[in-house]
Amino acid sequence: MAIILSGKEGKIAERVIIVGNLGRMKTITSMLNELETVNEFAGYYTYTGKYNGKRITVNFHGIGNSSLALITNDLISLGAKYIVRFGSATGVSDKADAGTAVVPIGYSYNIGGFALQELGEMINFAATGNLDLINLLVDSLKKSEVKVATGNMFTSDSIHSHDEKFLQKWRSLNHLAVDLEGAALYFEGARHGISTGAVHLIYRNPMTGKSMSQADIERTEKEISKSILDALTKL
Amino acid sequence: MAIILSGKEGKIAERVIIVGNLGRMKTITSMLNELETVNEFAGYYTYTGKYNGKRITVNFHGIGNSSLALITNDLISLGAKYIVRFGSATGVSDKADAGTAVVPIGYSYNIGGFALQELGEMINFAATGNLDLINLLVDSLKKSEVKVATGNMFTSDSIHSHDEKFLQKWRSLNHLAVDLEGAALYFEGARHGISTGAVHLIYRNPMTGKSMSQADIERTEKEISKSILDALTKL
Amino acid sequence: MAIILSGKEGKIAERVIIVGNLGRMKTITSMLNELETVNEFAGYYTYTGKYNGKRITVNFHGIGNSSLALITNDLISLGAKYIVRFGSATGVSDKADAGTAVVPIGYSYNIGGFALQELGEMINFAATGNLDLINLLVDSLKKSEVKVATGNMFTSDSIHSHDEKFLQKWRSLNHLAVDLEGAALYFEGARHGISTGAVHLIYRNPMTGKSMSQADIERTEKEISKSILDALTKL
Amino acid sequence: MAIILSGKEGKIAERVIIVGNLGRMKTITSMLNELETVNEFAGYYTYTGKYNGKRITVNFHGIGNSSLALITNDLISLGAKYIVRFGSATGVSDKADAGTAVVPIGYSYNIGGFALQELGEMINFAATGNLDLINLLVDSLKKSEVKVATGNMFTSDSIHSHDEKFLQKWRSLNHLAVDLEGAALYFEGARHGISTGAVHLIYRNPMTGKSMSQADIERTEKEISKSILDALTKL
Amino acid sequence: MAIILSGKEGKIAERVIIVGNLGRMKTITSMLNELETVNEFAGYYTYTGKYNGKRITVNFHGIGNSSLALITNDLISLGAKYIVRFGSATGVSDKADAGTAVVPIGYSYNIGGFALQELGEMINFAATGNLDLINLLVDSLKKSEVKVATGNMFTSDSIHSHDEKFLQKWRSLNHLAVDLEGAALYFEGARHGISTGAVHLIYRNPMTGKSMSQADIERTEKEISKSILDALTKL
Amino acid sequence: MAIILSGKEGKIAERVIIVGNLGRMKTITSMLNELETVNEFAGYYTYTGKYNGKRITVNFHGIGNSSLALITNDLISLGAKYIVRFGSATGVSDKADAGTAVVPIGYSYNIGGFALQELGEMINFAATGNLDLINLLVDSLKKSEVKVATGNMFTSDSIHSHDEKFLQKWRSLNHLAVDLEGAALYFEGARHGISTGAVHLIYRNPMTGKSMSQADIERTEKEISKSILDALTKL
Repeated sequence: MAIILSGKEGKIAERVIIVGNLGRMKTITSMLNELETVNEFAGYYTYTGKYNGKRITVNFHGIGNSSLALITNDLISLGAKYIVRFGSATGVSDKADAGTAVVPIGYSYNIGGFALQELGEMINFAATGNLDLINLLVDSLKKSEVKVATGNMFTSDSIHSHDEKFLQKWRSLNHLAVDLEGAALYFEGARHGISTGAVHLIYRNPMTGKSMSQADIERTEKEISKSILDALTKL
Repeated sequence: MAIILSGKEGKIAERVIIVGNLGRMKTITSMLNELETVNEFAGYYTYTGKYNGKRITVNFHGIGNSSLALITNDLISLGAKYIVRFGSATGVSDKADAGTAVVPIGYSYNIGGFALQELGEMINFAATGNLDLINLLVDSLKKSEVKVATGNMFTSDSIHSHDEKFLQKWRSLNHLAVDLEGAALYFEGARHGISTGAVHLIYRNPMTGKSMSQADIERTEKEISKSILDALTKL
Repeated sequence: MAIILSGKEGKIAERVIIVGNLGRMKTITSMLNELETVNEFAGYYTYTGKYNGKRITVNFHGIGNSSLALITNDLISLGAKYIVRFGSATGVSDKADAGTAVVPIGYSYNIGGFALQELGEMINFAATGNLDLINLLVDSLKKSEVKVATGNMFTSDSIHSHDEKFLQKWRSLNHLAVDLEGAALYFEGARHGISTGAVHLIYRNPMTGKSMSQADIERTEKEISKSILDALTKL
Repeated sequence: MAIILSGKEGKIAERVIIVGNLGRMKTITSMLNELETVNEFAGYYTYTGKYNGKRITVNFHGIGNSSLALITNDLISLGAKYIVRFGSATGVSDKADAGTAVVPIGYSYNIGGFALQELGEMINFAATGNLDLINLLVDSLKKSEVKVATGNMFTSDSIHSHDEKFLQKWRSLNHLAVDLEGAALYFEGARHGISTGAVHLIYRNPMTGKSMSQADIERTEKEISKSILDALTKL
Repeated sequence: MAIILSGKEGKIAERVIIVGNLGRMKTITSMLNELETVNEFAGYYTYTGKYNGKRITVNFHGIGNSSLALITNDLISLGAKYIVRFGSATGVSDKADAGTAVVPIGYSYNIGGFALQELGEMINFAATGNLDLINLLVDSLKKSEVKVATGNMFTSDSIHSHDEKFLQKWRSLNHLAVDLEGAALYFEGARHGISTGAVHLIYRNPMTGKSMSQADIERTEKEISKSILDALTKL
Repeated sequence: MAIILSGKEGKIAERVIIVGNLGRMKTITSMLNELETVNEFAGYYTYTGKYNGKRITVNFHGIGNSSLALITNDLISLGAKYIVRFGSATGVSDKADAGTAVVPIGYSYNIGGFALQELGEMINFAATGNLDLINLLVDSLKKSEVKVATGNMFTSDSIHSHDEKFLQKWRSLNHLAVDLEGAALYFEGARHGISTGAVHLIYRNPMTGKSMSQADIERTEKEISKSILDALTKL
């Protein structure tokens, strides 16, 4: 039962890209044909268009696991089968320096919160992506000029708590980067049995001290957007 | 250290109203003078204007505790002293039928998640508002035509889990209503020692079966917006 | 179903004051007319009398959440509608120096224990008082010579653990004071939908280094007792 | 550092019996010689006397883990080396029918609460008694006419939650009986390295439907009191 | 610092296969050349040999996360860089019928236990394998006659609790199968930054009612052993 | 329903000794008459023989709570009534120096893991032994030359985490020693209502710096084996 997307039956494609940044959303929608506005309610902008002859929906997901889980549940209930998130992240590993595209296998995340409420019990539920989709994303990115890394990320619920000690902890636990929503996507995908994947562009890495310039970000996000669209339409 | 509102020093008023709905935001900003756009980045729209000669900032907070906590931390770091949220909610008590304005004393919420990460331990941290601000809000609302109720609410992290059993549980525990972000506001306010309050308009109550019409909502939200502005500028 | 007060149907007033100190109990009962002994079993002394023409029950609550929750459940099952606790507390905030009367909005408390057993799940259940009763108490106290502060307190389960680090933690989290039973009263009131309030006299504040003398305590407790009785009989 | 018993250095014996019922306390103190009143403050009555030529302190412990832990910490800080509790309990096993004296090896108890606060982490800390003291108690009781059973008990934090389902659960887990404070005694004893033991007289067993009459209770409590004093003075 | 394998420096290959079944171990070692016995202490048999000219260690891992974590930490401390587990599992999904080889992306597992002790905090730590190694295993298996499935599994700590309700739960959460040790391997690999992978042969699937015959198992385990050795030596 | 020992009905004695070390197993089986091999499957060797004319089963239990719980459940389901574990342990108390035989009353252990899965809730479940069996073991050992200590132990789930801080913590909490499986035996015994006991030989104590030589271990294990057999056959 869709909530934000209530009444949008038939307007959501099987292939979906979700983003938390309106600029990134425009970068993607500008690559689509036959673009249609599906929803602008509550800031959860939804557009459906075509790429390589296949329908693609692009959707805003907001900040935090609860927000992303909400829109993801809506999308799944309306027929989404493959959902790829294109996000950013903060690198903590040398393998995830600024400019790298991280394709996570899984996310570590806080106990409790949305996962506890959904499952009704506390369990270390594996928030993992779909192997085929992850491979398509990695292969597609490797054809671009963007450096790719795969591994685990940590999904934080509180960006204001990201102090040095926090970042060092996840670095020492061999995580590549931290974000704010990734666990919810892989959690919902794994739970509902649909295919999810994600690409995070590392804007900055406080461990190496490197950051991307705005121009670099824009150029790289175009490349990644194209790679994601190519991957999704190979399915 | 502000994140979304980085670089907006001096542009945030001591008195802030936060909302998760762009229509509600317009209702409020239309009542302000000398309105200035502070931020439109990342969908977290921020405007500062004047009401009764006092500066008021209005800010979007997104969906979920993580999102609201992020913007609230930003606002506090930039000098906000009084933050009132104007939200909606789903009523579960007969005292919170559709059309009622609920002013919560406190929120129950899931263990773990944002609160665990911020505190570094699991503790039942009291997410409560400021007594003076709550009283000003209640008094101001009582001068309007809107019915007012006070008590506890539950902040959910997963709106898709709101089944009959869930709603009955919180009803039987004498909670008035459920929402998606309220705990984070009162938690951050209590933790940082600033004054927070909230007004939730009950759009619908599945227990009584009543809902507000869109026209009713619009008219009532205007009344509530005025009540909140009156209360905030009495401080 | 009453346990300690089994068989005392009809002998408990709607308005109740609970205390954990027999001296404080005598201070209160000495202000009542037509005093009747209801119970002396198990050390949970219970008296019912009159003040301003209205019936008032005064009851001992023992030490700890389990003890207070037990007698509170008994009182509610026998018809109590308004329960105010008059206790002491240790101040940790500058706003709660020795001699101050703290009227808490809510209490933070340890996860697990009595709350877990009663609810059957771990959730951050809001232990908050009733707004009207809190306001009556604050207003009544403001008419006395006692300084009043409102905000959050922490209910500890282990007074022997109150070391410097513990006190500094709650101070830094903007809590006013710590006690041993308050959470249970507000928890039971919120859960069962009856009105609860509390007044804590700060005997000492290790942060400011100030303590009340025994003479000060006795004089102030008389004032507060009168304020509570005045507030309760305005309902 | 003693709190309730502050200033009572030298007045507490190495051998202590604690009780939560003033009648039971009188039964024990009436068997002592040279009885001295040590404390009557805060309802935590403390008496020290002699039995078989050895000093014995008898102390009230109140209701709940927090209350018992508080007085136990006080007693230990003042030199107590052997603490035996004489309490009652509700039987749930056929081995613990009304009239049986249960000497527990260990107690199961709720996670969180006092144990979490004292240890600073959640761990299944073994709340067990001292083998030598347990054996002395069992041997001494076997010489009386009272039936004895040994095994585990559950310490509840909420007597109002003791419904049929609750009692059946602990019965099916092969626990003998439930009480309200036992875990705290064995926990503190194990943690501080002093010897603790306990005897619980089963007043009633809802599973068998049997209860003791008041006359039976009085007679049996005298026998048990003597058995405990005999055991303690063999050390 | 190795514990079971203390003193075996230099005798452990970078490429390791671990198994919990001595028959399966023999199937693998029979395919190696230049086989050397490294350890037979404590039942944790360890052999090192060669396949395709590369050194391979085969090690027993016992039952349960603690046992597997222990030997895995030993292997890593002695230089293991790629560890593949060849285990069995109970299928719960139609995609994991008897005879299928499941290559898990990640494992869900119980909170607490070994993971809590190792990390010192409760967090949903992603127990995921290495993408390259998983892909090599899948590709190698696809060249055999064995059917392959990828996705999540649940690692149980108590095989006696595997009742119908338990199995249905994990089926409904789209997990493929349940085992007893898998989470520990992926957890340790992710934490220490070495590459892990796993292949589970589904002996039976209580949902479909199908089981493998002993002859089938033996034949299929030979195929899978060869596939794993081929995959590992491509690195 | 037995899993490892499936099909071994009638071959398991009421009296069982379990061990995690094959050498120790041989020491015990060499003292039995009419020895029969019951199982060698999966490394869980099982032998049944006679001592003092009574049947005794000896069984391997592997490493970790999950492994020991599995075989213990199997043994109980096949009729075991008295299970004694003969293990080793690392001493942390001066009372448990190298060469001491520790007979634990109870075990502390990590929350979550096997106990959470079996009980379906998080509770501090008392993992305690049977008083009569413990007393028989202690009495029997006291007749030997081996020094005996009784008290609590901690069962660890991760031997690699046993750093100085860890050992000091349990020492300061008055625990005698740490092992890897003990909690599971006492937990299963308490839960199922059968009698369990344990004897741990302290191989080394990092606090005192003392260790046993291999010759000492062999000689002492013979003595302890005889003591256990003598105790078990007194039942």
